[in-house]
Amino acid sequence: MFRGSNLLRLADYNQAVILDLIRRDPGKSRADLQRNSGLASQTISNITRRLIDAEMVCESAPGDAVRGRPSIPLTVNGDGAFAVGVHVDPARLTILLLDVAGEVRSRQQLRTPQATNPGEMTSLIAVSTGRLIREAGIDRDRVLGLGIAVPGPLDVRTGVVLDPPQLPKWRGVRLRADLHDATGMPVLLDKDVTASATAELRKSADSDSDFLFVYLGSGVGASVVNQGQVLRGVSNNIGEIGDILVDPAAEDLGWSGRRGGLAAACVPEALVIQAAQAGLMPLPDLTDYLTIDDACTTLCELAAAGNAEASVILNRAARRVAVGIGVLVNFLDVPRVVLGGPTWNRLSGAFLPVLEDAVRHELVVSREAFAVVGSAVGEQIAAQGAAELVMDHFLAPRASVLVMD
Amino acid sequence: MFRGSNLLRLADYNQAVILDLIRRDPGKSRADLQRNSGLASQTISNITRRLIDAEMVCESAPGDAVRGRPSIPLTVNGDGAFAVGVHVDPARLTILLLDVAGEVRSRQQLRTPQATNPGEMTSLIAVSTGRLIREAGIDRDRVLGLGIAVPGPLDVRTGVVLDPPQLPKWRGVRLRADLHDATGMPVLLDKDVTASATAELRKSADSDSDFLFVYLGSGVGASVVNQGQVLRGVSNNIGEIGDILVDPAAEDLGWSGRRGGLAAACVPEALVIQAAQAGLMPLPDLTDYLTIDDACTTLCELAAAGNAEASVILNRAARRVAVGIGVLVNFLDVPRVVLGGPTWNRLSGAFLPVLEDAVRHELVVSREAFAVVGSAVGEQIAAQGAAELVMDHFLAPRASVLVMD
Repeated sequence: MFRGSNLLRLADYNQAVILDLIRRDPGKSRADLQRNSGLASQTISNITRRLIDAEMVCESAPGDAVRGRPSIPLTVNGDGAFAVGVHVDPARLTILLLDVAGEVRSRQQLRTPQATNPGEMTSLIAVSTGRLIREAGIDRDRVLGLGIAVPGPLDVRTGVVLDPPQLPKWRGVRLRADLHDATGMPVLLDKDVTASATAELRKSADSDSDFLFVYLGSGVGASVVNQGQVLRGVSNNIGEIGDILVDPAAEDLGWSGRRGGLAAACVPEALVIQAAQAGLMPLPDLTDYLTIDDACTTLCELAAAGNAEASVILNRAARRVAVGIGVLVNFLDVPRVVLGGPTWNRLSGAFLPVLEDAVRHELVVSREAFAVVGSAVGEQIAAQGAAELVMDHFLAPRASVLVMD
Repeated sequence: MFRGSNLLRLADYNQAVILDLIRRDPGKSRADLQRNSGLASQTISNITRRLIDAEMVCESAPGDAVRGRPSIPLTVNGDGAFAVGVHVDPARLTILLLDVAGEVRSRQQLRTPQATNPGEMTSLIAVSTGRLIREAGIDRDRVLGLGIAVPGPLDVRTGVVLDPPQLPKWRGVRLRADLHDATGMPVLLDKDVTASATAELRKSADSDSDFLFVYLGSGVGASVVNQGQVLRGVSNNIGEIGDILVDPAAEDLGWSGRRGGLAAACVPEALVIQAAQAGLMPLPDLTDYLTIDDACTTLCELAAAGNAEASVILNRAARRVAVGIGVLVNFLDVPRVVLGGPTWNRLSGAFLPVLEDAVRHELVVSREAFAVVGSAVGEQIAAQGAAELVMDHFLAPRASVLVMD
């Protein structure tokens, strides 16, 4: 059904090195590739010929010749390969098609069906994926596989979702195997924060950059990029920061999360409880993440429209988040913090004016160059990162450790 | 004065690769080195000859010949090179002499003179270092340099101690340049936690191991080892964890540290305030870290002797430290936590029985293989690590970024 991925999997190591060099820095000439890879000129010539024949790479108009033959810039052919990226947030389901040049070719955002069992969700993802590929009019054989990002904790090696607190029906679900059966595609499962940091790193101009990525969705998490590598933790479950105490005097939310903790400070569920306690809105059904998400949108809109009580809640949330970020920055001494995820666009208006100064106030070592910024990728960041992880799995010379069904 | 270091600095890259392979895994034959390095047999032969002539490497008794010539195990000659390691903790000053085989050849622990200006401290270190080298009867020319570990924050690049809260007279001290002037040796300055994690990693059987190192001295800090690399942070100031909130209901210590924070939970100063508040002892002079340190020793001895109030204080401290460690383990998903530093030996009796279970209780992702252990290195860990960093600077093929005066 999806034969293309098998074809591309046969690529040898040197070919992967060359393709990776072109992917990460388009416009390189054969001479550049020779210098960067250390491979012989004839080898470069053979490999680029094969990659051009396979329609993975194309030649652009030649630049000025320094001496001898003009130097021809090589770029990745966006139509050469694709990956599907899926992100299951308890409130929002994102499915997108990423091309090998890093462009999102099409994208669908659904409200995550509530009270649905994982089997129905798997079918929904499979059907939506098929439609997305069909409507994009691309060659099905060139889709390498499907990456899916979900809240942790996960067992990445077996592809099993363990017991995400916000997906109570998903305990022990063999998501990778089930999605493979439903789509026929190779499937890669990873954590939302890891996928998000991967997408952010790809978008970053400086591929060697260090940053802390803070994920805001129905839950809160963090990931770390160190010298151009996304740290993932020994069990691939990096980033559980929701229990960090950020306000010892925090109000009691009558909630399962840790009182005064970072999750209680900023996840939509906790924010709407705070809004209801302040009399801003009735308390929504807390078993329904869609309703929670809509109520959170309302709260953000109220604050943006100048409602004082809504602004107080979000300002307080930003200050508490800053305490949590301060803990992580003091610990790891990172120069930059990037915030993103499904909830970020709604919160950024209230958070950005407050956050950087409030984090600086927490820092033990003062630093001039420190910055707190919003993601450059957008709400689909985790889905995009999951697709990037699939690309890396098949195309990067150092193949990911992640198993695929 | 110290010419040996210059001699050894001329070593070329391939020679450094080979010496490093022998240092890290003694007993390798020339054939092993050829396999591990990819260098030609003749190159290996030349380099090992040079290293043997320079008395950096020696041949052991040959093993059984597999075929042809018997395989001769090569080991580092402990007398081939040395480094001085110094650790300035506000209460304890450690100076030691490490040989290139990783053995501490001699060691001196002093009580850090209080109310002393940095100039006097520099002289004390220089005099003690000279005596240590003389009394050890080693060749002065084979001492590569001096590494000094101090509490942060530091500017490692300029070798300046910025403003360590526990060394109030040390603001902006050009420690690296001053020590270089006083000793004539190359001097490397680094943070206590980074040096400690380096020493622990060297001692670890598994050179690829991941762990969180928690440093307990007059202050508290942490460092992270990821895939055999000690993370140091963008400004080399990794590990400021003292402000992490661990107990929202913590007593008021009338102290400069954050109320309910990790430092307030476990540093000697905070513990003796707690002991004084409980009526166990009079409050010592809090400007004198020696007096504080002695009072902390008394508290630990009381607990060890069965004093119920002392035990309550240390048990509570262990539980609070566990909350802080839980924050870091949940965030980074590390499989192992190692505790060490100048205060650890005294606290371990009360901490070890409690800590692992209490940390597990904090973990969001349950894991079977998780462990909390005491350091394998001992109280001199930071001084030893500082000496190891000097060895690496001069002998490892990937030279450290640290500048030396």
